[in-house]
Amino acid sequence: MSKAGELVKLLTENGLRISAAESCTGGLFCAAIVEIAGASAVLDSSYITYANSAKQKLGVRAETLEKYGAVSEQTAGEMAAAAAAQAGAQIGVGISGIAGPGGGSAEKPVGTVCFGFWVCGKIYTFTEYFKQPRRAQIRRAATDYALQKAFELTVEHTNITNDMHT
Amino acid sequence: MSKAGELVKLLTENGLRISAAESCTGGLFCAAIVEIAGASAVLDSSYITYANSAKQKLGVRAETLEKYGAVSEQTAGEMAAAAAAQAGAQIGVGISGIAGPGGGSAEKPVGTVCFGFWVCGKIYTFTEYFKQPRRAQIRRAATDYALQKAFELTVEHTNITNDMHT
Repeated sequence: MSKAGELVKLLTENGLRISAAESCTGGLFCAAIVEIAGASAVLDSSYITYANSAKQKLGVRAETLEKYGAVSEQTAGEMAAAAAAQAGAQIGVGISGIAGPGGGSAEKPVGTVCFGFWVCGKIYTFTEYFKQPRRAQIRRAATDYALQKAFELTVEHTNITNDMHT
Repeated sequence: MSKAGELVKLLTENGLRISAAESCTGGLFCAAIVEIAGASAVLDSSYITYANSAKQKLGVRAETLEKYGAVSEQTAGEMAAAAAAQAGAQIGVGISGIAGPGGGSAEKPVGTVCFGFWVCGKIYTFTEYFKQPRRAQIRRAATDYALQKAFELTVEHTNITNDMHT
């Protein structure tokens, strides 16, 4: 089963819904979810927030964008929380990175992608450096990473929740 | 150049921005746009409105969904208009279809996809029947169709506008 398939199965079994705010992946994460027949059990809405104004409109604070930049764990975390809030989902995913070829800097080179995950009220953030040379490869790698991480964090959360109930 | 590349180039040259409300394609249309380096010149926000509630929240009327269904030219047209309005874009795209394997009916079999295009205030709608057997193929075909049609309608519009100014 694909990683997206496993994630949709896990969310369905636990009655959880997911939403994302995607920047550099531009819809690839959500498209991977929708590729799974039965996705309607776990997905209502998702967002592509490419511009800073779009991120703000969804719910990211202007101060966060100004202080840390669009490609930062702070912004990715707020994107995840905002997507979950707007969609009424328990799991939110935020993806913001530099897919290139332009836009890189010494501090944040092309291939830098920040991820945020809102898991039932708790925020997790990560930064990855994808070394693939092409824009399409970086975007695909970021999508796969987000699917894998969303799966792992949801497993972790549901294990804790199930332990509390036994 | 890819169809998405041609569309981004055309929009950039004409100072136009695009947004979409995607249902069955689930982000593939927007992801094709973002695949093009320089997409930020034409894209701020885009939306995946998979559930009816998500379509309504974006701006599709409840009466339209009730009377014509989610997979209808009326709904797709309102999705296109709502995406453009929400994103402040001149070009809006609405895609709503039945990618299968379930959800088909005699009237609207699997492979039926309705498209709406908002082009600077004018709405165009179309229905296509994609005969490909697999969900992924139908979604890819619908994405390609929407990219092609958005390109053609924008060309048409810019030709008219340019004629008016000469």
